[in-house]
Amino acid sequence: MDSHPSFAPSGTQIDKVPGMLDANLRVRGRVPYAMDATLPGMLHAKLLRSPHAHARLVSIDTSRAKALPGVVAVLTGADLANRDDIYPYYGPIFRDQAILVIDKARFVGDPVAAVAAVDLDTAQAALDLIQVEWQELEPVLTLDAALAATSIVHDEPARLGQTFADIIVHTEADTNICNHFKLRKGDIEAGFAAADHIFEDVFTSPPVQHVPMETHNCVAWWENGTLRLISSTQMPFAVRAALAEIFKLPQTRVRITVPTLGGGYGAKTYPKLEPVTAVLAQVTNRPVRLHLTREEEFVTITKHGMQIRMKTGVTNEGKIVARQSTCHFNTGAYADIGPRLIKNGGFGTGGPHHIANVSVDSYAIYTNLAPAGAFRGYGVSQAAWAYESQMDMISERLGWDPLWFRMQNLLNEGESIMTGEPMVDAHFKELLATSAERIGWDPDQKASRAGSKVRAKGLAVIIKASVTPSTSTASVKLNEDGSLQILSSAVEMGQGAETTLSVLGAEVLDLRLDQVSITRPDTDHTPYDQGTSSSRNTYSMGTAVKMAVTDIREQLLKLGSDALEVAVGDLEVVAGQVRAKGAPTRAIGYGELVRRVRAGNLLATAVYASNGGLDPETGQGIGSVHWHQAAGAAEVEVDLDTGRVEVLKYHAGVYAGRIANPAQCELQTEGNIAFGLGQALYEEMIYDGGQLQNGNLADYMIVSMEDMPKEISLDVLEHLESHDIHGIGESSLPPCMPAVANAVFRATGVRITDLPITPEKVLRGLRAAAGQEVNA
Amino acid sequence: MDSHPSFAPSGTQIDKVPGMLDANLRVRGRVPYAMDATLPGMLHAKLLRSPHAHARLVSIDTSRAKALPGVVAVLTGADLANRDDIYPYYGPIFRDQAILVIDKARFVGDPVAAVAAVDLDTAQAALDLIQVEWQELEPVLTLDAALAATSIVHDEPARLGQTFADIIVHTEADTNICNHFKLRKGDIEAGFAAADHIFEDVFTSPPVQHVPMETHNCVAWWENGTLRLISSTQMPFAVRAALAEIFKLPQTRVRITVPTLGGGYGAKTYPKLEPVTAVLAQVTNRPVRLHLTREEEFVTITKHGMQIRMKTGVTNEGKIVARQSTCHFNTGAYADIGPRLIKNGGFGTGGPHHIANVSVDSYAIYTNLAPAGAFRGYGVSQAAWAYESQMDMISERLGWDPLWFRMQNLLNEGESIMTGEPMVDAHFKELLATSAERIGWDPDQKASRAGSKVRAKGLAVIIKASVTPSTSTASVKLNEDGSLQILSSAVEMGQGAETTLSVLGAEVLDLRLDQVSITRPDTDHTPYDQGTSSSRNTYSMGTAVKMAVTDIREQLLKLGSDALEVAVGDLEVVAGQVRAKGAPTRAIGYGELVRRVRAGNLLATAVYASNGGLDPETGQGIGSVHWHQAAGAAEVEVDLDTGRVEVLKYHAGVYAGRIANPAQCELQTEGNIAFGLGQALYEEMIYDGGQLQNGNLADYMIVSMEDMPKEISLDVLEHLESHDIHGIGESSLPPCMPAVANAVFRATGVRITDLPITPEKVLRGLRAAAGQEVNA
Repeated sequence: MDSHPSFAPSGTQIDKVPGMLDANLRVRGRVPYAMDATLPGMLHAKLLRSPHAHARLVSIDTSRAKALPGVVAVLTGADLANRDDIYPYYGPIFRDQAILVIDKARFVGDPVAAVAAVDLDTAQAALDLIQVEWQELEPVLTLDAALAATSIVHDEPARLGQTFADIIVHTEADTNICNHFKLRKGDIEAGFAAADHIFEDVFTSPPVQHVPMETHNCVAWWENGTLRLISSTQMPFAVRAALAEIFKLPQTRVRITVPTLGGGYGAKTYPKLEPVTAVLAQVTNRPVRLHLTREEEFVTITKHGMQIRMKTGVTNEGKIVARQSTCHFNTGAYADIGPRLIKNGGFGTGGPHHIANVSVDSYAIYTNLAPAGAFRGYGVSQAAWAYESQMDMISERLGWDPLWFRMQNLLNEGESIMTGEPMVDAHFKELLATSAERIGWDPDQKASRAGSKVRAKGLAVIIKASVTPSTSTASVKLNEDGSLQILSSAVEMGQGAETTLSVLGAEVLDLRLDQVSITRPDTDHTPYDQGTSSSRNTYSMGTAVKMAVTDIREQLLKLGSDALEVAVGDLEVVAGQVRAKGAPTRAIGYGELVRRVRAGNLLATAVYASNGGLDPETGQGIGSVHWHQAAGAAEVEVDLDTGRVEVLKYHAGVYAGRIANPAQCELQTEGNIAFGLGQALYEEMIYDGGQLQNGNLADYMIVSMEDMPKEISLDVLEHLESHDIHGIGESSLPPCMPAVANAVFRATGVRITDLPITPEKVLRGLRAAAGQEVNA
Repeated sequence: MDSHPSFAPSGTQIDKVPGMLDANLRVRGRVPYAMDATLPGMLHAKLLRSPHAHARLVSIDTSRAKALPGVVAVLTGADLANRDDIYPYYGPIFRDQAILVIDKARFVGDPVAAVAAVDLDTAQAALDLIQVEWQELEPVLTLDAALAATSIVHDEPARLGQTFADIIVHTEADTNICNHFKLRKGDIEAGFAAADHIFEDVFTSPPVQHVPMETHNCVAWWENGTLRLISSTQMPFAVRAALAEIFKLPQTRVRITVPTLGGGYGAKTYPKLEPVTAVLAQVTNRPVRLHLTREEEFVTITKHGMQIRMKTGVTNEGKIVARQSTCHFNTGAYADIGPRLIKNGGFGTGGPHHIANVSVDSYAIYTNLAPAGAFRGYGVSQAAWAYESQMDMISERLGWDPLWFRMQNLLNEGESIMTGEPMVDAHFKELLATSAERIGWDPDQKASRAGSKVRAKGLAVIIKASVTPSTSTASVKLNEDGSLQILSSAVEMGQGAETTLSVLGAEVLDLRLDQVSITRPDTDHTPYDQGTSSSRNTYSMGTAVKMAVTDIREQLLKLGSDALEVAVGDLEVVAGQVRAKGAPTRAIGYGELVRRVRAGNLLATAVYASNGGLDPETGQGIGSVHWHQAAGAAEVEVDLDTGRVEVLKYHAGVYAGRIANPAQCELQTEGNIAFGLGQALYEEMIYDGGQLQNGNLADYMIVSMEDMPKEISLDVLEHLESHDIHGIGESSLPPCMPAVANAVFRATGVRITDLPITPEKVLRGLRAAAGQEVNA
């Protein structure tokens, strides 16, 4: 990995980091996932799903299914709606999703009935025996149709939840507007009045899939009145809260354990399968496993498709003085976290620029498509697609170098972000400059041609919020042999959370990594965490872990001071010992200190809870605990005969504060590039009349290793005096799509504003430019 | 349950206690034990055991066993002794026990080789194919033979451990003395000089079995360099420490989880099966289960057989002025916890009496019998058998009422115990008086006869130490809905620990029990506890839990003070709310307070670590965190024709401080009576030449329900202003044996000083009394 020269080198601790603690097990396939849990008497569940995008449930006959040998239970929405001891709706913000369809189905794939049987074949056979009578309704299949409101997806009053109440404006009745986020900064009219040029463009991006290698799955059972779940979730505590609400139980009666996940990417945030599986386990009084097929993933959760209309005013000097955005996020049939995501997507349209006057209206829109929810980048990648495309479009129109134009506007230290807060620890300009340098940016050479193939380069730079407010808590035990155990509910999804947190804990006490262990989440045992999402783990949970271990260090120093008769200030902790500074033989081991006071172990806890939150009328306030900063630079080659785009080189620049684990920074960023290039070039869920046309991995294209650029480079910028460890998470994903689109434009003159950048669109653009020369 | 009138009634919280939280599951057989854990690819282990009591291992040939299809590993001591990465010895005080015999076998049943195979039948078949050549040595089979030292059980230097170093004098070379505890209080010679009468008697009791319904079992496997165990142990942390030492690993690399136990009674303290199972799992790289048969239980751990010579000096006024005891505890082939047990058994001979001059020499003696270890009562029941028998013998000799004689000597508040410390919260006299009253004690009527059957009554009163020093730690989480989770490593063995600790936690915050959950031990997740033994859990872990929950209460009061704008001192916690005293509507729920500060949960931890310890030369100091007090009274009927003793009535009086859970107090005490009567009348392990003759439950007799007294009564004395909750544990067990023996004597004139009181011994005594009239 390259390192930016203006920053200090990594600390020595980094040399001790073994990449990923359980890499050996992972590559040998010996890591158990939730789906590997097999309990005595366990049943297998399948879901019957709606064939209609929008239809009223008239009747359902499960008698033949129930009579099938091996079927233990067949459950419908009516079974749930008639029970006093269950609240049959869930959803992280609005409780708008029934565990099983009660009144009407709202998308093709909406679960209508659930079967638990002794094996999967029997469960599947039972589904075929359930007879459902539907009354079809007019489906709402596009944002335009939704806004026209000739048919209403949710004609019942939406159920408001308690969570995140501060960001919810409210659902507007008799419309398909699920939610509306507003931002008003400065004076937008005055801003446009001061502009020399105003540009208004429309950008769209489609719903796409998360495609974790492990599909959603969980096992539920009941044990002495307590609901137990082993679930593949990124948010055990959110799932626990939802299940406690559904079953009207104290949270002490719901216990969720989470093994490692085979990827999450936001798909596994908030309850998904858990409610229906838990009810099946309850009515059968047996363990029940539900494990989705890949095809079912496509109707479970998606990334929000969107349309953003962006109007930007600039001066002749290259300063952006006003930006007005109208964002419509297609949240599908159920809100999921949409009402929150439109906030990040909305203020995200301000970009990493200092713009004095901003106005944003961002809407979550109900349609009769599969629900959309968290997806890495969380609204920001949609926003960045718009603003970083438009930055190049404006540059082209005004004859500016896009690098120069960005540099005129990127946030400097202390300048106000779109949410009104000052930017702290700003590094956008370094990131962009380095990226331009790494890709060999030359403003004067737009493209180079060889035969039918044209090469060119593109840039992008973004700002990304992390979920705010943010709470992580941790507790730690220092054992009587001086080894350290960290209790954390961080979810290991393959991203290396456990390694990173172990490193952070080990550093504080200068321990070897084999002297540190870390838990997997168990809501009974491990302390609260908001969830592993939003690139927040390294920063938020890392902070909580360090706080708790620092408490232990203070306890050790005090005990060491008593034992060694040296003032605390004259002591240090080194390699498992408290010792007098400058007198290394005057030392005592941590374990000896624990044993001397017969404490068994030293214990400490920490709560990290950030402030933050935005004014609901103006969107001004604190939008993020801290802001992620990333740039990207792509070199593409476009085949003018076929329209095919190949990404030859990709460079990612990301700011880390301080690096916890270099190998994982690199891998994490490579994964982001794979995601970003897939979305740039291939990925989209294609619907016809509400029916998904490519809901499988034969027809839905993700990048393969063959599609990855032959050259990938990476700068993880460190600033050791900065805000400690930011975590890099998904920050390097959003620049990919606009960087590629900008390069394609520089290569071909074809501006694609609707993702993905398919050969068809490129060819269509080339034809539309009819006879115009390719830039060369 | 009866309640003593001189004590305050129970608190209201007690009415909420449901007996035992998981009683429903237990009676339906739905509680999973360690033996129910089945892991993919799991192997089954069997142990080859020595047929000789004392023999040198000459050679061992495992080749045929290894060649048997289905056998995955055959392990011998030589395999272990040759490995640098293993320290092949263990033991809680001395590391004197090899995982598998290395140099010589020291008892019939000593494990020599271990097999792991695909099923139990194959493992058993493999054992038969192992050929061992032995050189027999002179076995040491009795205490007398051991003291004669013509053969030495441990001719290697004993391996001293670090634990409990303060109580270890040391092992004497070239003898079979494992350990020696000394107590010197006052001036023993002056004491005897001041006595009007001096009596010297010898008492013995045999090794007996714990007989938990669940035999020892565990499953071990290795996961990414971490040893995992699901074990049926009372002491997960002691086992973890031992395994970390054996495998030379940090304790973070050993993780032990403990399901509920099917009884323990001391048999499951300290490592037993875990070391060999862990090595098998390591060499096979597969999960391995080892589950002992009932027959193997008899060669795994026993209660110490003993001989106590007790010399007591009394005045004509009935005051004991001197006592000298020489105790020999037969610790069998390996020390286990013997060196510690002889301390409690040694100072225990002082009894609950104020005696100014005491001298004790208590020895743990190695022999070639199965190892002896902790057994409920822990040395105290052996001591009480001696001193409470002798109290009646002295009374008989001097013509005193045994009740009166005891009353002259029982400790009053502030009088010094044998360890020199003052007795605090003394209730012996109340306990004994109540017991005498309940049984209908009449000093003038010794016995009543009807035909061949004679009835009479007997009394006993005892003092019992709890392990000291004592450390329990706990942590707690208050959830965002105000429910409470307790993290404790207390082991639920059927005694109701989880219920009791939940009640204690719930009380502090005035929560319902369904709002409280409690963990099972998981050494990675749950905080340190010394172990669930020695009647210590309710007191020590209960104290830690209350400390931690009290910290939460203080956090809530502070948050409530801010929220309600009421001073902390004017607030109270009631039914899940912080509220202003006298203004119940001015209140806020715990959950609301947690949510307001976005803490996710409130966390707190507590370390309860008692002081204590005895001077190694004088045995003076603090012998117990607190002292358990109990009395017993039996009415027996002896058939003069057959010698058979039937216990018609039994009354137990026990001091609880405050009762946490009345139903469980009752059940716990009934269990103690069953154990005590079994030992009084039936139980003994009978050896012939080192071979156990009755090592199965057909030949070894425990009480059946038929043998239980038709009338059992119980006083659990409460004193609400006292030291809070003592826990009653096994306190009511030790009085059983002397109370029955004293009753038998009053019925027949036959004094049995060697347990059990079999019909043969009674008849022999009757015949020896040749023609003497039975007292009537």
